[in-house]
Amino acid sequence: MTISLICIGHLKDASLCALEEEYQKRLSPFCRVEIIEVKEEPSNKKTLSRPQEIELIKEKEARRALEKIPKNEFCILLDLHGKEWTSEEFSRHLSSWAERFNHLTFVIAGSYGPGKALLQRSNERWKLSSLTFTHLMTRVLVLEQIYRGFMIQNNRTYHK
Amino acid sequence: MTISLICIGHLKDASLCALEEEYQKRLSPFCRVEIIEVKEEPSNKKTLSRPQEIELIKEKEARRALEKIPKNEFCILLDLHGKEWTSEEFSRHLSSWAERFNHLTFVIAGSYGPGKALLQRSNERWKLSSLTFTHLMTRVLVLEQIYRGFMIQNNRTYHK
Repeated sequence: MTISLICIGHLKDASLCALEEEYQKRLSPFCRVEIIEVKEEPSNKKTLSRPQEIELIKEKEARRALEKIPKNEFCILLDLHGKEWTSEEFSRHLSSWAERFNHLTFVIAGSYGPGKALLQRSNERWKLSSLTFTHLMTRVLVLEQIYRGFMIQNNRTYHK
Repeated sequence: MTISLICIGHLKDASLCALEEEYQKRLSPFCRVEIIEVKEEPSNKKTLSRPQEIELIKEKEARRALEKIPKNEFCILLDLHGKEWTSEEFSRHLSSWAERFNHLTFVIAGSYGPGKALLQRSNERWKLSSLTFTHLMTRVLVLEQIYRGFMIQNNRTYHK
């Protein structure tokens, strides 16, 4: 199975990059992981007060992400309005998706959130927490939960 | 104001250490941050099947942590059965605690969770997410939320 993690925006922090690589390595016995970075639209302080401009940014970013999602395969969008799961519940979902699909795509939207086109394409919407995390931290948290999911399925002591 | 983060267990990962230091540095204009590591009780695979032994471990660890919490000051325990807040709600709580106390202590329990003595001492119990994160990652997430809390209070663009 292949798992893609599509991220709108670039991971610059060296420590987070190292953590991401670590989880990619740990996941390699279970699946092929590819991380796809999609360009974030430029914005500035003024953008925040211009809702129409924000919508436009979100749609442009959504279109770029959509190009990278394989057709007829399963797509999980990280979304503040999505469903919350425990790690055990997520592990069961992961297992069921893996039975039905060859390719799973997780999408982390840009800093303004996901555009409508992405919301429409996604098969599931997943909320990690009520808290807002940095988009870069979210990448690591998602990979860690996927790894934890495989550990739970395999009854390994990583997850207590 | 001083903020203590008491952690049961040692942070070994170099990347997470670097992130922790980064947030300590960023927090320095707002408060003094001290990170206090308390020894984790040794355990092994067999421990998981011995509930009484787990209780003993949790109480030993709780007593060690309690020694480090200043008397009459505010203590927030990270707990899977605690309250969930958005980052904005957490920011408002942080601001109200800071008005009433000179010292805030956040406690991250060991891998078996908090002992009864810690649950009794804590003034608030905070659940980051329904998901289980690694204890080491939790340290970084808590510091990031405290930093985000100050940014929200100060209307800075860090939090969108």
